Amino acid sequence: MEIQPEKTTIVLFSGDLDKAIAAFIIANGAAAYDHEVTIFHTFWGLNLLRKDEHVPVEKNGLEKMFGKMMPRGPEKFGLSRMNFAGIGPKMIKHVMGKHQVLSLPQLIEMAQEQGVNLIACTMTMDLLGLKKEELIDGLDYAGVAAYLAEASDANVNLFI
Amino acid sequence: MEIQPEKTTIVLFSGDLDKAIAAFIIANGAAAYDHEVTIFHTFWGLNLLRKDEHVPVEKNGLEKMFGKMMPRGPEKFGLSRMNFAGIGPKMIKHVMGKHQVLSLPQLIEMAQEQGVNLIACTMTMDLLGLKKEELIDGLDYAGVAAYLAEASDANVNLFI
Amino acid sequence: MEIQPEKTTIVLFSGDLDKAIAAFIIANGAAAYDHEVTIFHTFWGLNLLRKDEHVPVEKNGLEKMFGKMMPRGPEKFGLSRMNFAGIGPKMIKHVMGKHQVLSLPQLIEMAQEQGVNLIACTMTMDLLGLKKEELIDGLDYAGVAAYLAEASDANVNLFI
Repeated sequence: MEIQPEKTTIVLFSGDLDKAIAAFIIANGAAAYDHEVTIFHTFWGLNLLRKDEHVPVEKNGLEKMFGKMMPRGPEKFGLSRMNFAGIGPKMIKHVMGKHQVLSLPQLIEMAQEQGVNLIACTMTMDLLGLKKEELIDGLDYAGVAAYLAEASDANVNLFI
Repeated sequence: MEIQPEKTTIVLFSGDLDKAIAAFIIANGAAAYDHEVTIFHTFWGLNLLRKDEHVPVEKNGLEKMFGKMMPRGPEKFGLSRMNFAGIGPKMIKHVMGKHQVLSLPQLIEMAQEQGVNLIACTMTMDLLGLKKEELIDGLDYAGVAAYLAEASDANVNLFI
Repeated sequence: MEIQPEKTTIVLFSGDLDKAIAAFIIANGAAAYDHEVTIFHTFWGLNLLRKDEHVPVEKNGLEKMFGKMMPRGPEKFGLSRMNFAGIGPKMIKHVMGKHQVLSLPQLIEMAQEQGVNLIACTMTMDLLGLKKEELIDGLDYAGVAAYLAEASDANVNLFI
């Protein structure tokens, strides 16, 4: 009889740097313990998966505006508190580097290397007008049903 | 031997439009997969269950003030970010309609039709001075013990 | 065969008064039902465990600044909404007292009396420069691995 691996799922709803760091530290920790880990990126959390450069794709006026107003990838994320117009994130990144904690882009890369399943919520992509070409490689594209299928037999399910 | 249905519980603490939409999309998805779903509305999340009209009930001064300052139902909720004094919610509602995503009031109605158990946290009602007459029909009234009883044998438990 | 107690874990990431109250009400409720409860205090949630007086310890410049800007313990926490420069928390504390709901410091004390395991996230301590001497007594000190070990066989896992 084969032993099923433990599963961990995270809904990453937040667009905050600090919450995204927490999510990816937990995800990488769980993956290191051989959990099958899924992060479902929805709403503001989907912006974490955007490439940091402008990608020319067809958009309507509102989609263009959303695209400009929302952060392109982890480097553009701000803190949920003590953000101080971007000084807070600089300070946090400084102390993380000093204490040899991986940066958020490194945490995302490590998660992908460890086989963490990063899902881009297709409903959010539709609503905000984000296209596959604008997102990083190696993602799955799915809706809430796929998330629930994973969460139903996971031990640890978090909404962040 | 009867098979127990899977259970999903959500603590809806947040008073944000976007988080409430996420909560009810997950709840309706789980209910569609025959999960027994419970949403425990506490703190700011209780305001989602308020009727949108003024209901004349006896209140002390502080309770009257809370009642006026807090949103009456889903139509009055704002976004957790990009709210822009109410323009953000209008844009989100617009794109949700365009993409045939149910609005928050429709999601709540559908949840009730699917038998999702909506609990109003009685401690929060006491603290904020909200009376049963001010809340929508078809709710359960209970405290944290009732929530924990459901969560203890649920597969998916989220705090939103 | 001995019956394993049910387990509940909470990641307390938030530095908001209202979310911390919710976390400790759930934790105390679960402990009252004989769950083994763990609260993992990380990021802003670590500030809840600070003593309310200044403790003279060696810090570098950035650590001193973090120490001054972040709240020292539960009495200094603000609300996630309707904070109004500290008037909101006063109102909430007033109505909690009136309705015989325990205050946050009392909820923390009760959690410790009930054997709730309060973990201070050591990575956060390093990043923010918080020392053991600055935190209340009776804590465990651990990282994400210890949290995941508890969460893996817990029934209820929440991120607050």
